[in-house]
Amino acid sequence: MTEKKATLRQLERYPNYLAYLKKLDQRGIDKVSSPMLAGVFNCSEEQVRKDLHLIAKRSGKPGSGRSVKELIEDIEDFLGYNSEKRAIVMGVGNLGTAFLRYNGFIKAGIDVVAGFDSDPKKLGKSVEGKPIYASSELKKVIEAKDVTIAIVTVPAGSAQSVADELSEAGIKAICNFSPAHLNVDDSIEVLNVDLAATLAVLSHKVKDRE
Amino acid sequence: MTEKKATLRQLERYPNYLAYLKKLDQRGIDKVSSPMLAGVFNCSEEQVRKDLHLIAKRSGKPGSGRSVKELIEDIEDFLGYNSEKRAIVMGVGNLGTAFLRYNGFIKAGIDVVAGFDSDPKKLGKSVEGKPIYASSELKKVIEAKDVTIAIVTVPAGSAQSVADELSEAGIKAICNFSPAHLNVDDSIEVLNVDLAATLAVLSHKVKDRE
Repeated sequence: MTEKKATLRQLERYPNYLAYLKKLDQRGIDKVSSPMLAGVFNCSEEQVRKDLHLIAKRSGKPGSGRSVKELIEDIEDFLGYNSEKRAIVMGVGNLGTAFLRYNGFIKAGIDVVAGFDSDPKKLGKSVEGKPIYASSELKKVIEAKDVTIAIVTVPAGSAQSVADELSEAGIKAICNFSPAHLNVDDSIEVLNVDLAATLAVLSHKVKDRE
Repeated sequence: MTEKKATLRQLERYPNYLAYLKKLDQRGIDKVSSPMLAGVFNCSEEQVRKDLHLIAKRSGKPGSGRSVKELIEDIEDFLGYNSEKRAIVMGVGNLGTAFLRYNGFIKAGIDVVAGFDSDPKKLGKSVEGKPIYASSELKKVIEAKDVTIAIVTVPAGSAQSVADELSEAGIKAICNFSPAHLNVDDSIEVLNVDLAATLAVLSHKVKDRE
Protein backbone atom coordinates (compact mmCIF):
# COMPACT_ATOMS: atom_id res chain seq x y z
CA MET A 1 0.00 0.00 0.00
CA THR A 2 2.71 2.45 0.96
CA GLU A 3 6.46 2.61 0.50
CA LYS A 4 6.98 4.83 3.51
CA LYS A 5 8.42 3.39 6.70
CA ALA A 6 7.58 4.76 10.12
CA THR A 7 9.54 4.10 13.28
CA LEU A 8 7.75 2.28 16.10
CA ARG A 9 7.70 5.51 18.11
CA GLN A 10 6.07 7.31 15.18
CA LEU A 11 3.49 4.56 14.75
CA GLU A 12 2.59 4.95 18.40
CA ARG A 13 2.13 8.72 18.01
CA TYR A 14 -0.35 8.66 15.11
CA PRO A 15 -3.31 7.38 17.17
CA ASN A 16 -2.77 10.30 19.59
CA TYR A 17 -2.68 12.84 16.74
CA LEU A 18 -5.79 11.19 15.32
CA ALA A 19 -7.75 11.47 18.59
CA TYR A 20 -6.82 15.15 18.93
CA LEU A 21 -7.57 15.99 15.29
CA LYS A 22 -11.02 14.39 15.60
CA LYS A 23 -11.68 16.57 18.63
CA LEU A 24 -10.73 19.70 16.61
CA ASP A 25 -12.95 18.53 13.74
CA GLN A 26 -15.93 18.06 16.09
CA ARG A 27 -15.43 21.62 17.29
CA GLY A 28 -15.51 22.89 13.70
CA ILE A 29 -11.80 23.80 13.61
CA ASP A 30 -10.57 23.14 10.08
CA LYS A 31 -6.87 24.09 10.12
CA VAL A 32 -4.04 22.91 12.33
CA SER A 33 -0.37 23.89 12.45
CA SER A 34 2.73 21.99 13.54
CA PRO A 35 3.50 24.45 16.40
CA MET A 36 -0.05 23.92 17.71
CA LEU A 37 0.32 20.12 17.71
CA ALA A 38 3.81 20.39 19.23
CA GLY A 39 2.34 22.42 22.08
CA VAL A 40 -0.47 19.93 22.76
CA PHE A 41 1.82 16.89 22.66
CA ASN A 42 4.74 18.54 24.40
CA CYS A 43 7.26 17.73 21.67
CA SER A 44 9.29 19.66 19.08
CA GLU A 45 7.77 21.26 15.97
CA GLU A 46 10.41 19.45 13.96
CA GLN A 47 9.08 16.09 15.16
CA VAL A 48 5.48 16.98 14.33
CA ARG A 49 6.52 18.18 10.88
CA LYS A 50 8.40 14.94 10.18
CA ASP A 51 5.50 12.83 11.44
CA LEU A 52 2.95 14.66 9.30
CA HIS A 53 5.20 14.77 6.25
CA LEU A 54 5.51 10.97 6.33
CA ILE A 55 1.78 10.32 6.12
CA ALA A 56 0.29 13.41 4.43
CA LYS A 57 -0.74 12.99 0.80
CA ARG A 58 -0.94 16.75 0.33
CA SER A 59 1.59 19.28 1.58
CA GLY A 60 0.75 21.99 4.10
CA LYS A 61 1.06 25.68 3.32
CA PRO A 62 3.54 27.56 5.50
CA GLY A 63 1.59 29.98 7.67
CA SER A 64 -1.88 28.59 7.04
CA GLY A 65 -1.33 25.04 8.28
CA ARG A 66 -2.92 21.79 7.20
CA SER A 67 -6.54 20.75 6.76
CA VAL A 68 -7.77 18.86 9.84
CA LYS A 69 -10.12 16.68 7.79
CA GLU A 70 -7.42 15.77 5.27
CA LEU A 71 -4.96 14.87 8.03
CA ILE A 72 -7.56 12.62 9.69
CA GLU A 73 -8.09 10.87 6.35
CA ASP A 74 -4.37 10.51 5.70
CA ILE A 75 -3.52 9.11 9.15
CA GLU A 76 -6.42 6.64 8.96
CA ASP A 77 -5.30 5.54 5.51
CA PHE A 78 -1.71 5.20 6.64
CA LEU A 79 -2.60 3.11 9.69
CA GLY A 80 -4.78 0.88 7.53
CA TYR A 81 -8.16 1.91 8.99
CA ASN A 82 -9.53 1.68 5.46
CA SER A 83 -7.97 -1.66 4.54
CA GLU A 84 -9.75 -4.27 6.58
CA LYS A 85 -7.85 -7.00 8.44
CA ARG A 86 -9.49 -9.98 10.12
CA ALA A 87 -8.69 -10.92 13.72
CA ILE A 88 -9.54 -13.76 16.10
CA VAL A 89 -9.64 -13.85 19.90
CA MET A 90 -7.81 -16.68 21.69
CA GLY A 91 -9.46 -17.34 25.07
CA VAL A 92 -13.11 -16.32 25.55
CA GLY A 93 -12.93 -15.28 29.22
CA ASN A 94 -13.92 -11.82 30.50
CA LEU A 95 -11.38 -9.89 28.46
CA GLY A 96 -11.80 -12.09 25.37
CA THR A 97 -15.58 -11.65 25.52
CA ALA A 98 -15.14 -7.88 25.82
CA PHE A 99 -13.02 -7.93 22.64
CA LEU A 100 -15.60 -10.01 20.77
CA ARG A 101 -18.29 -7.50 21.83
CA TYR A 102 -16.28 -4.29 21.41
CA ASN A 103 -17.47 -2.32 18.39
CA GLY A 104 -14.52 0.08 18.30
CA PHE A 105 -12.25 -2.23 16.33
CA ILE A 106 -14.16 -1.99 13.08
CA LYS A 107 -13.48 1.77 12.85
CA ALA A 108 -9.76 0.92 12.91
CA GLY A 109 -10.21 -1.59 10.06
CA ILE A 110 -10.07 -4.63 12.35
CA ASP A 111 -12.87 -7.15 11.92
CA VAL A 112 -12.93 -9.63 14.83
CA VAL A 113 -14.47 -12.73 13.23
CA ALA A 114 -14.29 -15.56 15.80
CA GLY A 115 -13.22 -16.70 19.25
CA PHE A 116 -11.32 -19.82 20.31
CA ASP A 117 -11.50 -21.54 23.68
CA SER A 118 -10.54 -24.84 25.27
CA ASP A 119 -13.69 -25.06 27.41
CA PRO A 120 -16.03 -27.62 25.72
CA LYS A 121 -19.04 -25.80 27.23
CA LYS A 122 -18.26 -22.69 25.18
CA LEU A 123 -17.76 -24.44 21.84
CA GLY A 124 -20.52 -24.08 19.28
CA LYS A 125 -21.81 -20.97 21.05
CA SER A 126 -21.29 -17.43 19.83
CA VAL A 127 -20.72 -13.90 21.18
CA GLU A 128 -22.39 -11.08 19.21
CA GLY A 129 -22.80 -13.51 16.34
CA LYS A 130 -19.11 -14.46 16.39
CA PRO A 131 -18.67 -18.25 16.68
CA ILE A 132 -16.47 -19.90 19.33
CA TYR A 133 -14.31 -22.74 18.02
CA ALA A 134 -11.89 -25.30 19.45
CA SER A 135 -8.23 -24.71 18.61
CA SER A 136 -8.33 -27.80 16.36
CA GLU A 137 -10.23 -25.54 13.92
CA LEU A 138 -7.55 -22.86 14.02
CA LYS A 139 -5.78 -23.49 10.70
CA LYS A 140 -9.08 -23.95 8.85
CA VAL A 141 -10.57 -20.68 10.18
CA ILE A 142 -7.37 -18.65 9.64
CA GLU A 143 -7.16 -19.81 6.02
CA ALA A 144 -10.87 -19.61 5.21
CA LYS A 145 -11.36 -16.13 6.66
CA ASP A 146 -7.90 -14.79 5.77
CA VAL A 147 -7.16 -13.93 9.41
CA THR A 148 -4.03 -11.81 10.05
CA ILE A 149 -4.11 -11.03 13.78
CA ALA A 150 -4.70 -13.12 16.89
CA ILE A 151 -5.65 -11.35 20.14
CA VAL A 152 -4.34 -13.59 22.93
CA THR A 153 -6.24 -13.28 26.24
CA VAL A 154 -5.55 -16.73 27.72
CA PRO A 155 -3.86 -17.02 31.15
CA ALA A 156 -0.06 -16.68 31.25
CA GLY A 157 0.38 -20.42 31.72
CA SER A 158 -1.29 -21.27 28.39
CA ALA A 159 0.00 -18.36 26.32
CA GLN A 160 3.11 -20.04 24.87
CA SER A 161 1.25 -23.17 23.75
CA VAL A 162 -1.44 -20.98 22.15
CA ALA A 163 1.31 -18.98 20.41
CA ASP A 164 2.80 -22.24 19.10
CA GLU A 165 -0.58 -23.30 17.72
CA LEU A 166 -1.07 -19.89 16.09
CA SER A 167 2.38 -20.05 14.56
CA GLU A 168 1.70 -23.48 13.06
CA ALA A 169 -1.66 -22.31 11.76
CA GLY A 170 0.00 -19.45 9.84
CA ILE A 171 -0.93 -16.32 11.82
CA LYS A 172 0.98 -13.14 10.90
CA ALA A 173 0.60 -11.05 14.06
CA ILE A 174 -0.13 -11.61 17.74
CA CYS A 175 -1.41 -9.02 20.17
CA ASN A 176 -0.50 -10.59 23.51
CA PHE A 177 -2.61 -9.47 26.48
CA SER A 178 -1.22 -12.20 28.74
CA PRO A 179 1.66 -11.28 31.04
CA ALA A 180 3.77 -14.08 29.50
CA HIS A 181 6.83 -13.63 27.28
CA LEU A 182 6.18 -15.39 23.96
CA ASN A 183 8.84 -17.13 21.89
CA VAL A 184 7.75 -17.08 18.26
CA ASP A 185 9.37 -17.05 14.87
CA ASP A 186 10.68 -13.65 13.74
CA SER A 187 8.24 -13.70 10.84
CA ILE A 188 5.37 -13.12 13.31
CA GLU A 189 4.86 -9.60 14.66
CA VAL A 190 4.21 -9.63 18.40
CA LEU A 191 2.87 -6.73 20.43
CA ASN A 192 2.74 -7.18 24.21
CA VAL A 193 -0.03 -5.33 26.06
CA ASP A 194 0.19 -6.27 29.72
CA LEU A 195 -2.72 -4.30 31.21
CA ALA A 196 -1.65 -4.88 34.82
CA ALA A 197 1.90 -3.73 34.05
CA THR A 198 0.49 -0.72 32.17
CA LEU A 199 -1.38 0.35 35.30
CA ALA A 200 1.69 -0.38 37.44
CA VAL A 201 3.79 1.91 35.24
CA LEU A 202 1.13 4.61 35.57
CA SER A 203 1.05 4.22 39.35
CA HIS A 204 4.86 4.34 39.39
CA LYS A 205 4.77 7.69 37.63
CA VAL A 206 2.37 9.00 40.29
CA LYS A 207 4.69 7.67 43.01
CA ASP A 208 7.62 9.52 41.41
CA ARG A 209 5.78 12.81 41.81
CA GLU A 210 4.98 12.31 45.48
CA MET B 1 9.95 4.78 47.90
CA THR B 2 12.78 5.35 45.46
CA GLU B 3 14.86 8.30 44.42
CA LYS B 4 15.76 6.84 41.06
CA LYS B 5 14.11 8.17 37.94
CA ALA B 6 13.41 6.03 34.91
CA THR B 7 12.62 7.33 31.44
CA LEU B 8 9.23 6.46 29.97
CA ARG B 9 10.93 4.10 27.53
CA GLN B 10 12.63 2.32 30.41
CA LEU B 11 9.40 2.05 32.36
CA GLU B 12 7.85 0.40 29.34
CA ARG B 13 10.67 -2.15 29.10
CA TYR B 14 10.55 -3.46 32.68
CA PRO B 15 7.28 -5.40 32.25
CA ASN B 16 8.87 -7.19 29.27
CA TYR B 17 11.99 -8.09 31.26
CA LEU B 18 9.72 -9.24 34.09
CA ALA B 19 7.70 -11.58 31.87
CA TYR B 20 10.87 -13.13 30.43
CA LEU B 21 12.58 -13.49 33.83
CA LYS B 22 9.52 -15.26 35.21
CA LYS B 23 9.71 -17.69 32.31
CA LEU B 24 13.37 -18.39 33.10
CA ASP B 25 12.49 -18.85 36.77
CA GLN B 26 9.73 -21.35 35.93
CA ARG B 27 12.27 -23.34 33.92
CA GLY B 28 14.62 -23.43 36.90
CA ILE B 29 17.19 -21.08 35.35
CA ASP B 30 18.67 -19.03 38.19
CA LYS B 31 21.23 -16.75 36.53
CA VAL B 32 20.85 -14.27 33.68
CA SER B 33 23.38 -12.03 31.93
CA SER B 34 23.01 -8.70 30.15
CA PRO B 35 24.18 -10.15 26.78
CA MET B 36 21.49 -12.85 27.09
CA LEU B 37 18.73 -10.28 27.72
CA ALA B 38 20.08 -8.04 24.96
CA GLY B 39 19.81 -10.97 22.54
CA VAL B 40 16.23 -11.79 23.53
CA PHE B 41 15.03 -8.17 23.37
CA ASN B 42 17.09 -7.22 20.33
CA CYS B 43 18.78 -4.26 21.98
CA SER B 44 22.30 -3.31 23.12
CA GLU B 45 23.99 -4.84 26.16
CA GLU B 46 24.68 -1.30 27.32
CA GLN B 47 20.96 -0.56 27.44
CA VAL B 48 20.19 -3.73 29.40
CA ARG B 49 22.98 -2.95 31.84
CA LYS B 50 21.67 0.58 32.41
CA ASP B 51 18.11 -0.67 32.84
CA LEU B 52 19.11 -3.32 35.39
CA HIS B 53 21.51 -1.02 37.23
CA LEU B 54 18.69 1.47 37.82
CA ILE B 55 16.41 -1.01 39.59
CA ALA B 56 18.73 -3.67 41.06
CA LYS B 57 19.30 -3.50 44.81
CA ARG B 58 22.31 -5.80 44.54
CA SER B 59 25.03 -5.59 41.91
CA GLY B 60 25.73 -8.37 39.41
CA LYS B 61 29.06 -10.16 39.24
CA PRO B 62 30.89 -9.80 35.92
CA GLY B 63 30.97 -13.20 34.25
CA SER B 64 28.39 -14.94 36.42
CA GLY B 65 25.44 -12.64 35.83
CA ARG B 66 22.55 -11.72 38.09
CA SER B 67 20.13 -13.82 40.11
CA VAL B 68 16.85 -14.26 38.20
CA LYS B 69 14.78 -14.37 41.40
CA GLU B 70 16.40 -11.23 42.81
CA LEU B 71 15.85 -9.34 39.56
CA ILE B 72 12.17 -10.34 39.54
CA GLU B 73 11.83 -9.04 43.11
CA ASP B 74 13.66 -5.80 42.32
CA ILE B 75 11.65 -5.01 39.18
CA GLU B 76 8.37 -5.74 40.99
CA ASP B 77 9.43 -3.52 43.88
CA PHE B 78 10.51 -0.77 41.53
CA LEU B 79 7.25 -0.81 39.56
CA GLY B 80 5.30 -0.74 42.82
CA TYR B 81 3.85 -4.28 42.62
CA ASN B 82 4.37 -4.49 46.37
CA SER B 83 2.92 -1.08 47.28
CA GLU B 84 -0.78 -1.31 46.66
CA LYS B 85 -2.69 1.40 44.82
CA ARG B 86 -6.46 1.58 44.56
CA ALA B 87 -8.20 2.03 41.20
CA ILE B 88 -11.77 2.58 39.97
CA VAL B 89 -13.37 1.79 36.63
CA MET B 90 -15.36 4.54 34.87
CA GLY B 91 -18.00 2.95 32.62
CA VAL B 92 -19.20 -0.56 33.40
CA GLY B 93 -19.75 -1.81 29.83
CA ASN B 94 -18.06 -4.91 28.38
CA LEU B 95 -14.50 -3.67 28.81
CA GLY B 96 -15.21 -2.07 32.19
CA THR B 97 -16.79 -5.29 33.45
CA ALA B 98 -13.77 -7.26 32.23
CA PHE B 99 -11.51 -4.94 34.26
CA LEU B 100 -13.67 -5.33 37.39
CA ARG B 101 -13.49 -9.12 36.98
CA TYR B 102 -9.82 -9.40 35.93
CA ASN B 103 -7.71 -10.89 38.71
CA GLY B 104 -4.35 -10.03 37.14
CA PHE B 105 -4.26 -6.46 38.50
CA ILE B 106 -3.76 -7.42 42.11
CA LYS B 107 -0.42 -9.09 41.29
CA ALA B 108 0.75 -5.73 39.95
CA GLY B 109 -0.30 -4.00 43.17
CA ILE B 110 -3.48 -2.52 41.69
CA ASP B 111 -6.67 -3.10 43.68
CA VAL B 112 -9.74 -2.26 41.60
CA VAL B 113 -12.27 -1.27 44.25
CA ALA B 114 -15.39 0.02 42.47
CA GLY B 115 -17.09 0.83 39.19
CA PHE B 116 -19.00 3.96 38.12
CA ASP B 117 -21.73 4.15 35.52
CA SER B 118 -24.44 6.55 34.38
CA ASP B 119 -27.02 3.82 33.74
CA PRO B 120 -29.50 3.85 36.69
CA LYS B 121 -30.18 0.12 36.14
CA LYS B 122 -26.56 -0.71 37.05
CA LEU B 123 -26.37 1.40 40.21
CA GLY B 124 -26.46 -0.45 43.52
CA LYS B 125 -25.37 -3.67 41.79
CA SER B 126 -21.88 -5.12 41.97
CA VAL B 127 -19.40 -7.06 39.81
CA GLU B 128 -17.25 -9.63 41.67
CA GLY B 129 -18.23 -7.90 44.92
CA LYS B 130 -17.15 -4.49 43.61
CA PRO B 131 -19.99 -1.96 43.93
CA ILE B 132 -21.22 0.20 41.05
CA TYR B 133 -21.84 3.84 41.94
CA ALA B 134 -23.19 6.95 40.23
CA SER B 135 -20.60 9.63 39.43
CA SER B 136 -22.19 11.84 42.12
CA GLU B 137 -20.42 9.51 44.60
CA LEU B 138 -17.03 9.98 42.92
CA LYS B 139 -15.37 12.41 45.33
CA LYS B 140 -16.62 10.49 48.37
CA VAL B 141 -15.33 7.12 47.11
CA ILE B 142 -11.97 8.50 45.93
CA GLU B 143 -11.34 10.09 49.32
CA ALA B 144 -12.71 7.27 51.47
CA LYS B 145 -10.81 4.51 49.64
CA ASP B 146 -7.70 6.58 48.82
CA VAL B 147 -8.11 5.89 45.08
CA THR B 148 -5.18 6.91 42.85
CA ILE B 149 -6.05 5.63 39.38
CA ALA B 150 -9.19 5.79 37.23
CA ILE B 151 -9.55 3.35 34.33
CA VAL B 152 -11.73 5.12 31.76
CA THR B 153 -13.72 2.80 29.48
CA VAL B 154 -16.65 5.09 28.60
CA PRO B 155 -17.39 5.88 24.92
CA ALA B 156 -15.27 8.61 23.27
CA GLY B 157 -18.15 11.08 23.43
CA SER B 158 -18.34 10.98 27.25
CA ALA B 159 -14.62 10.66 28.01
CA GLN B 160 -13.83 14.37 28.43
CA SER B 161 -16.74 15.02 30.81
CA VAL B 162 -15.74 11.96 32.86
CA ALA B 163 -12.14 13.24 32.93
CA ASP B 164 -13.42 16.62 34.17
CA GLU B 165 -15.38 14.91 36.96
CA LEU B 166 -12.33 12.82 37.92
CA SER B 167 -10.16 15.91 37.98
CA GLU B 168 -12.57 17.73 40.30
CA ALA B 169 -12.81 14.68 42.55
CA GLY B 170 -9.03 14.66 43.02
CA ILE B 171 -7.83 11.67 40.96
CA LYS B 172 -4.05 11.44 40.40
CA ALA B 173 -3.86 9.24 37.29
CA ILE B 174 -6.09 8.27 34.38
CA CYS B 175 -5.66 5.24 32.17
CA ASN B 176 -7.73 6.20 29.14
CA PHE B 177 -9.07 3.29 27.06
CA SER B 178 -11.39 5.54 25.05
CA PRO B 179 -10.14 6.78 21.67
CA ALA B 180 -10.69 10.39 22.80
CA HIS B 181 -7.96 12.95 23.49
CA LEU B 182 -8.36 14.17 27.09
CA ASN B 183 -7.56 17.69 28.27
CA VAL B 184 -6.65 17.55 31.95
CA ASP B 185 -4.51 19.49 34.35
CA ASP B 186 -0.77 18.70 34.17
CA SER B 187 -0.89 17.42 37.74
CA ILE B 188 -2.82 14.35 36.52
CA GLU B 189 -0.84 11.57 34.80
CA VAL B 190 -2.67 10.32 31.68
CA LEU B 191 -1.85 7.14 29.81
CA ASN B 192 -3.76 6.53 26.57
CA VAL B 193 -4.41 2.92 25.60
CA ASP B 194 -6.47 2.90 22.41
CA LEU B 195 -6.97 -0.84 21.82
CA ALA B 196 -8.30 -0.39 18.28
CA ALA B 197 -5.35 1.82 17.34
CA THR B 198 -2.98 -0.69 18.97
CA LEU B 199 -4.30 -3.40 16.67
CA ALA B 200 -4.18 -1.03 13.70
CA VAL B 201 -0.50 -0.32 14.39
CA LEU B 202 0.14 -4.07 14.57
CA SER B 203 -1.68 -4.65 11.30
CA HIS B 204 0.29 -1.78 9.76
CA LYS B 205 3.54 -3.50 10.71
CA VAL B 206 2.33 -6.67 8.96
CA LYS B 207 1.38 -4.60 5.91
CA ASP B 208 4.88 -3.11 5.82
CA ARG B 209 6.37 -6.57 5.51
CA GLU B 210 4.14 -7.63 2.62
